[in-house]
Amino acid sequence: MNDHKIDHIGIAVKDIDAAIKLYRDYIGLECEPIQTFEKSGLRLVFLKTGESSLELLCPMAKPPKGSDGEMIATFIKEKGEGIHHIALVVDDINGTLKKLDKNGIALDDKVGRPGAHGLIAFLNSKSTYGTVLELCEPKH
Amino acid sequence: MNDHKIDHIGIAVKDIDAAIKLYRDYIGLECEPIQTFEKSGLRLVFLKTGESSLELLCPMAKPPKGSDGEMIATFIKEKGEGIHHIALVVDDINGTLKKLDKNGIALDDKVGRPGAHGLIAFLNSKSTYGTVLELCEPKH
Repeated sequence: MNDHKIDHIGIAVKDIDAAIKLYRDYIGLECEPIQTFEKSGLRLVFLKTGESSLELLCPMAKPPKGSDGEMIATFIKEKGEGIHHIALVVDDINGTLKKLDKNGIALDDKVGRPGAHGLIAFLNSKSTYGTVLELCEPKH
Repeated sequence: MNDHKIDHIGIAVKDIDAAIKLYRDYIGLECEPIQTFEKSGLRLVFLKTGESSLELLCPMAKPPKGSDGEMIATFIKEKGEGIHHIALVVDDINGTLKKLDKNGIALDDKVGRPGAHGLIAFLNSKSTYGTVLELCEPKH
């Protein structure tokens, strides 16, 4: 059995400052500085929730084609603001992906690719009953 | 600053056994027994993720009117299966609700009401940028 935990929950928002007000000022979560990723067309911020975080994701006005910002903008357009994905920590990301693949689970990433804090991979949501699921293996 | 953590993430699914297969058998999460709540028209199961859990919520075929099962069935009908809500632990649920109310955040519950493990309250999602947010104060 792996040692699992939730790394973060990604939440798509239109106005990152307004959302920070709710989570930091009214609920009392500790808030990291906002990060801006021009190439990804995205602003994001982490709010601490114990061993996990909430990650607010806010697309820029004109995110580059194929960027994460465009993906989040499309999500907001189609489904509205709200929870976008769950990122789960696994010990052995490539071993887990291999097992998923063998069992017919569709994967957007067949092997882990570099993310903010280690290797990450997305499962394809057609195999995850509607939940966008990210696996991550943190750097040790 | 409160001592916050994610208590659980609620996920709406149509077929609880299929979803358990993914999370338990292929990803390796520890799975509690399925609980059936006839009055709520709901079957649910918790999967352990560190200090938090994933809570799979599956409506019964004909959930009673106004029940949680009906709410989840409506969610699936309108938005499809997937992540439904985040439950955040707070130290003082009624103090937090009072502060939210004073700041114009719409609440579905003005004071904490009994939940599975303590007091719970839902914020109204029109004030939470699309995220269904539950606060909970566990029994000490």
